[in-house]
Amino acid sequence: MTHTQTDNGGAALDAVLSAAAQSAAAFAATAPRERAAALVRIADRLDAAVAEIVRIGGEETALPEGRLRGELNRTTAQLRLFAEVVMEGAYFDARIDEADADYVVGPRPDVRRVNVPLGPVLVFAASNFPLAFSVAGGDTAAALAAGCPVVVKAHDGHPRLSDLTARIVTEALAESALPSGVFALISERDDATAALQDPRIRAASFTGSTAVGRMLADLAATRPDPIPFFGELGSVNPVFVTPAALAADGERIAKEYVASVTGSAGQLCTKPGFCFVPDIAPMRAGITAALKGLGETRLLTPSISTGYAQRRAALMSASGVEIVAEGGLRTDEDGFAWVVPTVLTVGLADLEKAGDAVLDETFGPLSVLVTYDERAALPAVAERIFPGNLTATLHLAADEDPGPWEALVAALGRTSGRVLFRGWPTGVSVTAAMQHGGPHPATTSDATSVGTAAIGRFLRAVCFQNAPAAFLPAALREDNPWGVPQRRSPAGLSHDWGTLTGRY
Amino acid sequence: MTHTQTDNGGAALDAVLSAAAQSAAAFAATAPRERAAALVRIADRLDAAVAEIVRIGGEETALPEGRLRGELNRTTAQLRLFAEVVMEGAYFDARIDEADADYVVGPRPDVRRVNVPLGPVLVFAASNFPLAFSVAGGDTAAALAAGCPVVVKAHDGHPRLSDLTARIVTEALAESALPSGVFALISERDDATAALQDPRIRAASFTGSTAVGRMLADLAATRPDPIPFFGELGSVNPVFVTPAALAADGERIAKEYVASVTGSAGQLCTKPGFCFVPDIAPMRAGITAALKGLGETRLLTPSISTGYAQRRAALMSASGVEIVAEGGLRTDEDGFAWVVPTVLTVGLADLEKAGDAVLDETFGPLSVLVTYDERAALPAVAERIFPGNLTATLHLAADEDPGPWEALVAALGRTSGRVLFRGWPTGVSVTAAMQHGGPHPATTSDATSVGTAAIGRFLRAVCFQNAPAAFLPAALREDNPWGVPQRRSPAGLSHDWGTLTGRY
Repeated sequence: MTHTQTDNGGAALDAVLSAAAQSAAAFAATAPRERAAALVRIADRLDAAVAEIVRIGGEETALPEGRLRGELNRTTAQLRLFAEVVMEGAYFDARIDEADADYVVGPRPDVRRVNVPLGPVLVFAASNFPLAFSVAGGDTAAALAAGCPVVVKAHDGHPRLSDLTARIVTEALAESALPSGVFALISERDDATAALQDPRIRAASFTGSTAVGRMLADLAATRPDPIPFFGELGSVNPVFVTPAALAADGERIAKEYVASVTGSAGQLCTKPGFCFVPDIAPMRAGITAALKGLGETRLLTPSISTGYAQRRAALMSASGVEIVAEGGLRTDEDGFAWVVPTVLTVGLADLEKAGDAVLDETFGPLSVLVTYDERAALPAVAERIFPGNLTATLHLAADEDPGPWEALVAALGRTSGRVLFRGWPTGVSVTAAMQHGGPHPATTSDATSVGTAAIGRFLRAVCFQNAPAAFLPAALREDNPWGVPQRRSPAGLSHDWGTLTGRY
Repeated sequence: MTHTQTDNGGAALDAVLSAAAQSAAAFAATAPRERAAALVRIADRLDAAVAEIVRIGGEETALPEGRLRGELNRTTAQLRLFAEVVMEGAYFDARIDEADADYVVGPRPDVRRVNVPLGPVLVFAASNFPLAFSVAGGDTAAALAAGCPVVVKAHDGHPRLSDLTARIVTEALAESALPSGVFALISERDDATAALQDPRIRAASFTGSTAVGRMLADLAATRPDPIPFFGELGSVNPVFVTPAALAADGERIAKEYVASVTGSAGQLCTKPGFCFVPDIAPMRAGITAALKGLGETRLLTPSISTGYAQRRAALMSASGVEIVAEGGLRTDEDGFAWVVPTVLTVGLADLEKAGDAVLDETFGPLSVLVTYDERAALPAVAERIFPGNLTATLHLAADEDPGPWEALVAALGRTSGRVLFRGWPTGVSVTAAMQHGGPHPATTSDATSVGTAAIGRFLRAVCFQNAPAAFLPAALREDNPWGVPQRRSPAGLSHDWGTLTGRY
């Protein structure tokens, strides 16, 4: 359980991976309350360090203090939610089939099935949430909750904040008397790709660009022993505004649209990249008004800065694209871009003709209003040009007849992980029902990386047949010492589902 | 919903895939009772055709009538179990977060999450279960239950039985008035690999050899849009016998071992390939007696025959391997091997030295007794040389002290999907708690391909935020018209888990 900088290369990385592998069995065997207590300790210590976290985070990321305080609250609430998930125990999915001599497919033994941790998880921290999707973010919380040791690759956009967070996590885990090796931080890119291919790493998670994510996913898939890779890659989060909504609420929608596009300087994976409207005229005044107050913001990293400048230039020169509001862009001597939001517009026919040149995600404060003529064309458009997104949104007028829009909503459900109504996709709540993951390329798997269901990524099932009580995991024992929900299929039933007992 | 032979190449395959894709949305929208009724109709029609199925199956596979009748019962019971799973509705994992202005990470919208079908699934039928893992087998049943159209690649080991089964399935689906395109059979290998890479196919499942499975898994992973590939590949299913069990029950264990190794001519994915004993002497008499009654059996296909002959020769000539019982092997003019079971033995040290040359799976009636000296060495042996198996088994004496064997059982849980006690891994029950899937190379994912949990492979989650009732899927509606379990997180709770309502 050491915070290890692997600057000295292979030997240090090997020590980190060995420690993780060697701690895996003991960590997997810890009781839920031990892991829950450790998660709460991490949260408490992070909260206690709020001043230092906000100071260093602000220096490194240029994110405003309010955003960093809010993100820290989200991060520590997330850790405590996972502590509750662990204590509740539904994630074990404990199933007990009683032995049944007369079972429908022949005599049935006693079979009991439970979810167990996958083993050491490699977490690639994101740039854009230096707390909530970084060293002690959602992936780390979910993996630790599952009982998996975690090795975090720090994002080079906030190295000092990563070190500080890792030190706090390490101290909290030490205080919790957990097996050593349960947590480590690495910082070198080569170490991370080596770790991704190391047999001691049993799963990996990633939040970042499509190009890097796909490269890492391919490394995971082409190992001699492929491992699950949970990558959250690109998403342009289309928004559709009905004619009635535009007529009734055009100005409000325009203002909220600008707020969603420009918050955190547009560096959110759920930023609406395209907003479909029948006509931009009713939006213009609202957009202009909303943009007026916005000053220059620094982007998170030089790499994001370069990517934004290239995408912005490509979009502004694409055929059929017109400028609604051109925000400034200058690059400082350290390579960081300072930007003012830009809003463009294009007709649907030109958008389809332009293809990926326009459709690719632009990470930063830029969005495109797409004008459409025919409602009936939209479902096929959604499926054809937006096959995989984290979110999709429909703005209807209050009390608008849903019938004409059902086909579009069905298409949005097929092509995204979250379908929103009369709201905006930025700001993802951390709850039991949240789904933050969608068809490729939004994510590389069908799992969610936000919300309590995210723990499922780091578990697999194992079953025990006719096991003497002494060999059964606690969650499968008749005396159920951890009080977890157990799904029991009694002998003699024609069907399989049985009864569920526990704390529901 | 046509039974299509794609002998005429690309155009026919394209028609099959288009029909599957075009039926996907309508099939996904069917009510549980419609899909359940269709599954039961398939089962009823298959049962009604038992005479023809057993006759053709026997001609093509040389499997005895009793085995085919038992497998048909398993196949139709499996279809009916999935009908019950669909009706019960827990597989939807319906979650409802009530809106909460005071939620811990900030005001929470109304969010509702449900599992939806992935879309058209490509099923590669297996050779060794011409019914239960073939055209209307577990993968097809699970995918149809989930609401996914199915395209089955027939196994060339039983083409007429595949055609017959497909005709029955097609008729039952037509009678059920389901969308056309929900089911099709293809027969050409090139068509199957083309389908696996076609954007209209959204997931694939496979049961077969490690070499072919890995080739197909790599095709799925390297698509522009990678899809989930659920492959069940190789497994050697180690069995461990304690000294006390051997002393008390050596002869019984020997006889049961032979029965498990030789049933279905050893062509089962759960056949015990290696059996660890402290000494083979107490087993000899039982093995000899059990083998004495066994005549020659034909293997399923020429390809399996060739593979068996090669593996058997390699094992018999491997350093340190001795023959306990050498069963015959002759190949007929059609390329089928006729075999009598073979049992070999090797010391643990020689086994470790030999590596993959001995450790690779031998598909057919051959198994290796491995002699060990030290109990303490076994957990590390299990992890090092058997990293991924479907099953692992421990035979203890009645009332034997479990303590000394806990480390081994823990290792078996880490390296396999099912841990058995005082039994044999062949004969997999189809139940809620069954896990038929283990760490690579046993399977390419952590999912199960047997038991009702297998439906989870063909689902993904989508959530709806602040959705008007008209847009909510039935499983998420307040009036819950399908009566599915709904997990509700009320506003005002500090924790996330809420209450579960439904038919548990």
